[in-house]
Amino acid sequence: MNASIDQLYVQLTGFLDQEQVTQNETVRDLHSKDESYHTPSLPDLVVYPRSTDEVSRIVKAAGSLNVPVIPFGVGSSLEGHVIPYDHGITIDFTEMNQIIEVNPSDMLVTVQPGVTRSVLNKELKKHGLFFSVDPGADATLGGMAATNASGTTSVKYGVMRDQVRDLEVVLADGTVIHTGNKAAKSSSGYHLNGLFVGSEGTLGCFTELTLRVFGIPEVTTAARATFTSITNAIEAVPAILQAGIPIARVELVDTESIRQVNAYSETDYAELPTLFLEFHGNEAGLAQDVAFTEEIVTDFGCKEILFETETASRNRLWEARHNAAYAYTHGFPGKQMMLTDVCVPISKLAEAVVFAREELDRTGLEGGIVGHVGDGNFHVLLMIDHENEEELKTADEYNETIVRRALACGGTCTGEHGVGVGKQKYQRDEHGEAYDVMLKIKHVLDPDNVLNPGKLIK
Amino acid sequence: MNASIDQLYVQLTGFLDQEQVTQNETVRDLHSKDESYHTPSLPDLVVYPRSTDEVSRIVKAAGSLNVPVIPFGVGSSLEGHVIPYDHGITIDFTEMNQIIEVNPSDMLVTVQPGVTRSVLNKELKKHGLFFSVDPGADATLGGMAATNASGTTSVKYGVMRDQVRDLEVVLADGTVIHTGNKAAKSSSGYHLNGLFVGSEGTLGCFTELTLRVFGIPEVTTAARATFTSITNAIEAVPAILQAGIPIARVELVDTESIRQVNAYSETDYAELPTLFLEFHGNEAGLAQDVAFTEEIVTDFGCKEILFETETASRNRLWEARHNAAYAYTHGFPGKQMMLTDVCVPISKLAEAVVFAREELDRTGLEGGIVGHVGDGNFHVLLMIDHENEEELKTADEYNETIVRRALACGGTCTGEHGVGVGKQKYQRDEHGEAYDVMLKIKHVLDPDNVLNPGKLIK
Ligand SMILES: Cc1cc2nc3c(=O)[nH]c(=O)nc-3n(C[C@H](O)[C@H](O)[C@H](O)COP(=O)(O)OP(=O)(O)OC[C@H]3O[C@@H](n4cnc5c(N)ncnc54)[C@H](O)[C@@H]3O)c2cc1C
Ligand SMILES: Cc1cc2nc3c(=O)[nH]c(=O)nc-3n(C[C@H](O)[C@H](O)[C@H](O)COP(=O)(O)OP(=O)(O)OC[C@H]3O[C@@H](n4cnc5c(N)ncnc54)[C@H](O)[C@@H]3O)c2cc1C
Repeated sequence: MNASIDQLYVQLTGFLDQEQVTQNETVRDLHSKDESYHTPSLPDLVVYPRSTDEVSRIVKAAGSLNVPVIPFGVGSSLEGHVIPYDHGITIDFTEMNQIIEVNPSDMLVTVQPGVTRSVLNKELKKHGLFFSVDPGADATLGGMAATNASGTTSVKYGVMRDQVRDLEVVLADGTVIHTGNKAAKSSSGYHLNGLFVGSEGTLGCFTELTLRVFGIPEVTTAARATFTSITNAIEAVPAILQAGIPIARVELVDTESIRQVNAYSETDYAELPTLFLEFHGNEAGLAQDVAFTEEIVTDFGCKEILFETETASRNRLWEARHNAAYAYTHGFPGKQMMLTDVCVPISKLAEAVVFAREELDRTGLEGGIVGHVGDGNFHVLLMIDHENEEELKTADEYNETIVRRALACGGTCTGEHGVGVGKQKYQRDEHGEAYDVMLKIKHVLDPDNVLNPGKLIK
Repeated sequence: MNASIDQLYVQLTGFLDQEQVTQNETVRDLHSKDESYHTPSLPDLVVYPRSTDEVSRIVKAAGSLNVPVIPFGVGSSLEGHVIPYDHGITIDFTEMNQIIEVNPSDMLVTVQPGVTRSVLNKELKKHGLFFSVDPGADATLGGMAATNASGTTSVKYGVMRDQVRDLEVVLADGTVIHTGNKAAKSSSGYHLNGLFVGSEGTLGCFTELTLRVFGIPEVTTAARATFTSITNAIEAVPAILQAGIPIARVELVDTESIRQVNAYSETDYAELPTLFLEFHGNEAGLAQDVAFTEEIVTDFGCKEILFETETASRNRLWEARHNAAYAYTHGFPGKQMMLTDVCVPISKLAEAVVFAREELDRTGLEGGIVGHVGDGNFHVLLMIDHENEEELKTADEYNETIVRRALACGGTCTGEHGVGVGKQKYQRDEHGEAYDVMLKIKHVLDPDNVLNPGKLIK
């Protein structure tokens, strides 16, 4: 540990309890990695604040000593976002985990950043409400806002950015600001909500979030539609959207992924390209939506569509879908995940997925495809041995091939996982001179590059 | 005209046609004001670019001579946004009015900034599509993006910011960037779309916009629900939303405004506090929504609910609503409009409106209230004589009272019209230290303060 860290340790323990600041080896190790293939690197200290004021003082102290600060939720991000490559201190938000206010009349909730989506939904359920964004890990709301997470329901309810009404943010110099308010819309000032959501801890630490919630729909119906061709499965999706059916979820799970899911979740779903669907609505409207969707998928050669109307079987379906990535890690012990995450205009999706599958077969890597296809977003889940340099190189080149193709057709290198360190090499190509605007914003708001340095931008 | 302007004139006519640069008195006068009470001020030149490249060269030339640049759509903004208080050149986007691409399969459209919403919708209709944002003026899409406009349908389809996938922007130094892409979502880099939308010409000139469009719904039904009390009318709204009814429009028109509307649009609507409603959906679902809404408004003491299922009467209803502001200008010849534009959490809306009405009566000013009440946004339309200093002062103080109350309950001073010069004095109070973040962003992106100086921020 260098002198600055020693000094910082003394300063921090001056206003934090002893157990809130740790150099413990195991704890540091837990904060040295995410759930992906990225190489770990240890933080010097891990700090557990309990209030906004403490976060402000921590950031100020670290900043004045030029020690990097890495905000940390549960570390489920997939592109090395939380790995302290320049060392420094990790701020773990676990102890800031209070639901501050549930406000059903404004359909809003205010939470501390360490609340996870499952804890929030458990509380909201008592009020007949739910929070819509559901990444496949039980992430924190702070982390989800910082990566602009999304999930299976974004096609209807939007991504994380669409839910954020206000963030309390500790800036690089310790100043505390609010980026929004509690009104449903505003044209006042620059839109800081939008800017800070997705900033991956590089512009500030979120210490409180006010989020939009929705009423639990009157009726929910889920379905599995199997197809003999993956192209048909995908091409049914824009047809459903163009028909104006307000589909709540539409997920692609390819044959290989169904196989992994069956093994892990003990399901016996047909091993075919499948769409997992869900409809939310009132009784009469939903029945009409479902019937219309059945017609459409049939037109696209759907082999069979099975409805899951019971809550239990519906929950099992979505649990199986959410655990798809964990099914792979379970199926390939000792290997790590690499996920591609491109998002393309939906008219280009079928081609992009078919291309991804063909290229994957060419490489001989293990993996499969799942996707939030209603948004044009899909993941190739690759299982690789991160100590096998050859394999890592092949996987990396493969990932790059998929990204280049997505950029060429007007898409993005990352639909939801974010940039971290893994998608950084594509930023200049994707954004062109807009990247310089981003650099300017980073430099003016964090001139000493203290906040999560080397992530998203550099 | 000063020396810089002379020099600029020479430079501009070096690459623009003679008729694209004018010092004509009438044209300058037309660009010296908006549709509100704000005091006019003349631009030195008005320029009509025809391409992005021309805009880039114009901005660069003006910037190098430190001449202010004011982007101009149709000048329908209401807070002095387009008034050149520091003189300089106005860039009028009228001649950049091409619809570049309608892309039904991705539900996107790409337009030049000078296209107006009515022209766009006429074209989209051929494809079974519509663009949702509908301010009460036939504004340009460039202007609407620059103010983050919204309108009657935002409660269901979102505000302007929600529709923007990509902007082509000419920055202060003439650089051309793209802020987004054609994918439905992205977590790549900072969210520049969000930042530039609502920036009121202070961060760049938009030269191309890619926007989300929607399918024309299978069924549309409109209704007018009259109430004996304005409180009841408003309190029915959160009840409708909390019931999960995906209402497409819900507008409050108070008794005074109904009176103005009847006089101007030759309607004979009952002179009572009224909600104008619209439902979009499939046949069966909509019928259930309508029935449920009828129950709810009845619970809130609705006197009568009348449905307008015919396209013609429905169009008449919305035309009357859209023309509400023009009805007032017509009803009070020689007077100018001042509009309050607060947006509050919907749970505070009824109180806020009642308070606004009571305070209005106290002042003795002429006016009425209309509101996009599904978003918690309402306008007091004041008709004032801007040469009567006493009246102006009373109106200004009244406006301030309404704003202070909205800020105190977690709202914003402007839900949709934007800041311009009129709402500037509230920015520091509304945003606190977040205002300094905004200032830093402005300074780093427009260091010489060339772009629409004195607007939104200063
Ligand atoms: C199995 C699996 C499935 C997944 N599926 C999805 C999916 O469907 N959709 C999706 O979007 N993602 C998915 N992810 C990725 C991950 O869950 C998301 O990126 C999530 O948002 C990360 O949240 P976290 O709490 O783990 O944050 P972390 O990983 O701890 O941190 C993520 C980023 O946020 C920053 N951060 C954390 N807290 C704060 C704070 N309070 N203030 C400021 N910055 C902060 C960190 O510095 C870091 O840059 C998946 C991951 C796994 C392992
Ligand atoms: C009767 C009436 C009713 C209205 N109702 C509503 C309503 O319901 N909802 C609502 O939101 N507004 C409403 N407005 C206000 C107004 O219509 C909106 O603010 C609209 O967005 C302005 O568009 P415009 O084309 O007139 O822009 P302008 O007034 O010309 O410009 C507005 C701002 O945008 C900037 N700008 C214009 N073009 C560009 C460009 N290409 N690039 C960068 N900046 C640019 C200007 O510099 C200025 O700051 C109403 C106005 C009137 C007169």
